[in-house]
Amino acid sequence: MARWEPNARERLVIAALDLFAEQGYDATTVSQIAERAGGLTKTTFFRYFPDKREVLFAAGQEIHGQIVADAIATAPEPFTPLSAVAAALDALTSTFGDDRREFCARLLAVIAASSELRERSVAKHAALAEAMTGALHKRGVPDPAASLAADLGVRAWDHAFAQWADPGGTEAFPDLARRALGELRAAIASLD
Amino acid sequence: MARWEPNARERLVIAALDLFAEQGYDATTVSQIAERAGGLTKTTFFRYFPDKREVLFAAGQEIHGQIVADAIATAPEPFTPLSAVAAALDALTSTFGDDRREFCARLLAVIAASSELRERSVAKHAALAEAMTGALHKRGVPDPAASLAADLGVRAWDHAFAQWADPGGTEAFPDLARRALGELRAAIASLD
Repeated sequence: MARWEPNARERLVIAALDLFAEQGYDATTVSQIAERAGGLTKTTFFRYFPDKREVLFAAGQEIHGQIVADAIATAPEPFTPLSAVAAALDALTSTFGDDRREFCARLLAVIAASSELRERSVAKHAALAEAMTGALHKRGVPDPAASLAADLGVRAWDHAFAQWADPGGTEAFPDLARRALGELRAAIASLD
Repeated sequence: MARWEPNARERLVIAALDLFAEQGYDATTVSQIAERAGGLTKTTFFRYFPDKREVLFAAGQEIHGQIVADAIATAPEPFTPLSAVAAALDALTSTFGDDRREFCARLLAVIAASSELRERSVAKHAALAEAMTGALHKRGVPDPAASLAADLGVRAWDHAFAQWADPGGTEAFPDLARRALGELRAAIASLD
């Protein structure tokens, strides 16, 4: 029987990110990731992740969807679709302490360099939008307003994430997200 | 040397759609498509399309991008980002005569049944949005307003396409697109 490995999941994520950055995503095998994570095995890897592609995404997706859905469900009055999305972004970005900034910067660089990871990232954005849209529906927001508001939320998230993860950045993630959403609101007002 | 085959391209597209509908996209080979198109060869197929996936998309993508870009470039004053997008949708949907309605209905059904074709369809939507965004930039619309307006255009296009291709439908495609864009404009006004 496999012995218990402390922090195996976290070690695997960090090892994967290191190897993807060093030698590219395509050239990296699951065995190499497990070995780099302090002599773990493929079997241990697959206990935590369904495949190589998921190692950088498995942590966030479900949790992030739950965080934004909860925040929208409990967004206070006066409620508007965008005030609820703002609350969702606040809740989500508040979970990212500045100690994760460097990790996220490396994550973005690795994703940008691999078409397979970019594709997975697009799917993650879609899942986040879906979580927000579903929660807005439950608060009585119809379509297409719900999915439009959710798309603006994902755009703001994405824009703020890139700014926050920038090595030269100093602002807190929630502040960047609020500003990004504000800019989108202003842009929408300029469309017609 | 291969002899000239009249309407080979069109015959290949129709044969592919027939076979995808009958036996599924995954189970269909390029040889089968060529054979069904009246005894053509794989070589003829690859003269027109880079691969099996492109056979349903190759026709539209570049032409559609050019049509929307041209319409935005020449959209009359008073110019707003959404008036230009409305002009683009008018130009694009006007190229779809009602004789193509049935073909497009079958196309949508085949795309919906294949994850690979759905993915390709998403990429096509992104390319259309990019064409509109680029044309809006040239008319002086900054980001994020340009990409927001383009996204609304693609949403309206997509929604109206599904309605127009519905076998029970009778309305003209441009009318449906105008209404879809109008509904999105109203929804945006309700976000805050």
